[in-house]
This record gives sequence, C-alpha cells and structure tokens, in this order.
Amino acid sequence: MDTKYTFAKKIVVEAGEFLRQHLYDSLDIQVKSHFTDLVTHLDQQVEEDLSCKILTRYPEDKILGEEGHSQPSVSEGNVWIIDPIDGTTNFIVQQEDFAVLLAYFENGVGKFAIIYDVMKDEMIHGGSHYPVYLNDQPLVAFQDKELKESLIGLNTGLYAQNVDGLANLANHTLGTRSFGSAGIGFARVLKGQLLAQASYLYPWDYGAAAILGESLGYHLITTDGGQPRFQGREMVILLPKAKEKEIITLLE
Amino acid sequence: MDTKYTFAKKIVVEAGEFLRQHLYDSLDIQVKSHFTDLVTHLDQQVEEDLSCKILTRYPEDKILGEEGHSQPSVSEGNVWIIDPIDGTTNFIVQQEDFAVLLAYFENGVGKFAIIYDVMKDEMIHGGSHYPVYLNDQPLVAFQDKELKESLIGLNTGLYAQNVDGLANLANHTLGTRSFGSAGIGFARVLKGQLLAQASYLYPWDYGAAAILGESLGYHLITTDGGQPRFQGREMVILLPKAKEKEIITLLE
Repeated sequence: MDTKYTFAKKIVVEAGEFLRQHLYDSLDIQVKSHFTDLVTHLDQQVEEDLSCKILTRYPEDKILGEEGHSQPSVSEGNVWIIDPIDGTTNFIVQQEDFAVLLAYFENGVGKFAIIYDVMKDEMIHGGSHYPVYLNDQPLVAFQDKELKESLIGLNTGLYAQNVDGLANLANHTLGTRSFGSAGIGFARVLKGQLLAQASYLYPWDYGAAAILGESLGYHLITTDGGQPRFQGREMVILLPKAKEKEIITLLE
Repeated sequence: MDTKYTFAKKIVVEAGEFLRQHLYDSLDIQVKSHFTDLVTHLDQQVEEDLSCKILTRYPEDKILGEEGHSQPSVSEGNVWIIDPIDGTTNFIVQQEDFAVLLAYFENGVGKFAIIYDVMKDEMIHGGSHYPVYLNDQPLVAFQDKELKESLIGLNTGLYAQNVDGLANLANHTLGTRSFGSAGIGFARVLKGQLLAQASYLYPWDYGAAAILGESLGYHLITTDGGQPRFQGREMVILLPKAKEKEIITLLE
C-alpha cells in the first residue's frame, strides 16, 4: 500500500505540473450540457494520462472518472476515483481555484485520497492508516466551534432556492463562501476554515473528501443524512461529526 | 507625490506583516451591529497605526476610515481612505482572503491606491500617473470578453434577493463567486479573473478599487449607474467600461 500511496501522490503532482504549464493554452472548450459544465481537452487529456499510468502499473485495478466510459462499482475490487480538474470553469476563466482529486478504495473501503490545489501548490493527502497532511504539515482534527462562529461553503443557486434547507443552515452561520470548486471548498473544511461544504456532486467530486474527512472528524453524507451511493449525482455535505445532528436538524 | 506613494506602499506592507504575526491571537472580538460585522482590536490597532504614521508625516492631510471619528469629505484637501482589514470575518475564521486597502485623493481626484492581499502577499498598486502593478508585474487593461464567458463576484444574500437586479446580471454569466471580502473580489476583477464585483459598501471598501480600476478600463459606479458619493453605504459595482451599458441594462 505504501508504494501505491507514493505512486498516487507522484502522478497527481505530475498532473498539476502539466496543468500549470498549459494554463493559458487556447482552450478547445466543449460545452456539454450547459456553460457551467465546461470540459476542456485538458480535462480529457489529464484523465487519460492518470488512467494510463494507473492501469499500466496496476492492470487489475479499475478507474471511476468523469470522462471514463465504464462506471465501476466502488464496492468491489480496487477502484481509483479521479477528477483531473475539479473547478474547470475556474481553470478556464480564473486560472486559479481548481484541484486534482484522487480517491482509492479497496472493496468499498477508502484507503487514501488526495486533494491538490494546483495553483496554491497545496496537497492534502492521507486517509485510513495514513495521517492527513497539508504538504508536509499534519492537519488537526475538527476543533469544536459554534455554527454562529463559522462559515460554510455553498453556491448562490443552492442558497437562493434553499435547496434541501441549506439556506436555513447558512442563516445559522456567519455566512457562505463560494469558490466554484467543491474540491477547494472541501480543502477549506479540512483545513478548519469552513465548517462544512455542500454541493450537488458526482463521486469523483466527493470521493477524496469522504476519505480525508473521515480521518479528521468529518463525515461526507447526503443532505438527508444518508450515505452517498457513489453513483450518479447527489446533494452531499462534508460536515463535522460533532455537529452532524445539529446540522441535519436544520436541513429540513 | 513619488515620496508619498512609496511611503504608502511601505506602511501597507508593515500593516500586512503585523497582521500575519497576529493571525492566531486570541481575538477580542467585538460584535457591532451583527455577527457579519465583526471588528477586532486588530482592526482598530492597525487603523490607528496607519493613521498615526500618515498624520505624523503629513499633518495637514485627513483620514477617512471605518474606525475614525471624523468623516472628512473626499472632495477637499488631501484625504487618505484606509481599511485596515477588509474581510474581518475571513481574518478571524479563515486566516485568509482579507486585504489592507488604501486610497489617496487630492481635492477629489484619486492619485494612487493599494489593495494588499495579505496572505497571498499580492499587492496591487498604482493609479492616475502610476501604472498599475501586481507586485512587480504590470497588470493589463480589461480584455474584452462576453458576459456568458465570465464570472462575477457577488454574495449569496444579494443574489438570493436579486438586489438591484444583480441576480439578473449573474444569470447572464457563468456564475458567481463569493470570497467574503470586496477587496479580494476587486483584486480578482483587476487581475482579469472576474468580470465585475458588486457589494453594499462604504467608501473605505471601494475607494482603492475606484482609483485602480480607472487605470485598467474599469469603472466603479453605483448599481443605478451613478457616481458613488463617498459617504455612507451604497450598492456599488466595479465593471469594465466597455460593458457598462450592457450591464446597467440588465440591472433593472
């Protein structure tokens, strides 16, 4: 496992270096379902590069990713969940606030994960038997604080429509922040800057946060208090276990 | 003027160094009108330090600031507008995404200004006869792009209530970002990352953006298309002059 973990960190760093080198490329932007769901050829290329490196070295393993053609179940075998650019719109428009995300599961059990904020060069890595670090600094587990002294990550649309009661929750805090990348929001939760981050996400968006959060006193759940299915898109929230009951009560 | 400009940059850097040294102080937080309007003793101390340095060196000049007792008119004499910590909530809760803001006017004419993102150590400085720089890199003027290819800075509350039609505007773009500090949002506009930043602000929040923006093809106006009064609190927006007509039309 140590070798695999080291390998994972290496290929994510390489992906980040590649993205930094191609920040200002004239982008062949494809509009999928909506302008807010931009995919660039760099997304596709980085996902292919990561997949190729993983499968060359671990041919029995499976890949779950945004661009992948197969959608393997996380509960069976060795599954790598990858998001080559979380925050594609930010990558294109801001050249900042995007992340490479990786989560590794064996038979449904999270073994390690990585959230790499490329432009800050900040990698949060660890999970399960590996302590969680921000680069080479250990991260501390959730330090108790009141909702009214805390901020949460939430985009304007979810707040405006009070989806799943998330505006009710936000109104019990100091307010919301919206970075346009769930991975960047999750990283701020893990660093203790935000109390929680809620978004409507696919498994490749939330897999890493689920594993890393577990090691630091957080829980990645659906907004109705259930376990994410790791299939399709769901409203999920990364929150402190110590606040789970209080927060779920507000989400109604 | 060169001496004054150099002096201004020096005292802002000193303020930033002080804030970085006191990031984790146990804060004597005063709640003014609301939890979202937090003021720390560090705000007060930094404003006093800046004011003291300015008035010691330029005793004829006047200071307009959040903590100041007098509220001099910007249109007469030499007026320094200062905000010691723009984004106090971020300073307290996130230890990131806050800025020191300074704007200098002579008889109502902006002469230079500074937005200093303390934790990124990024200083945007210049205005009027001084080219605008990000640290030692010149910033380019607004590069034309479509609203539908752009992001705007707007907080969730303003979006949710469609204040002054700002949600209408946002819905013509790729979406919103909310950093919890107008200064940080304005910096992203000046760096070309956001198309516009709208907030409900006091002069010390928007004075620097007004001066710096003017040099880069932007305009700081009220959301009804007027000039800010530099008195009290107003809904203002920093936007590209080339898009002013299109944006104002949407703000209805």
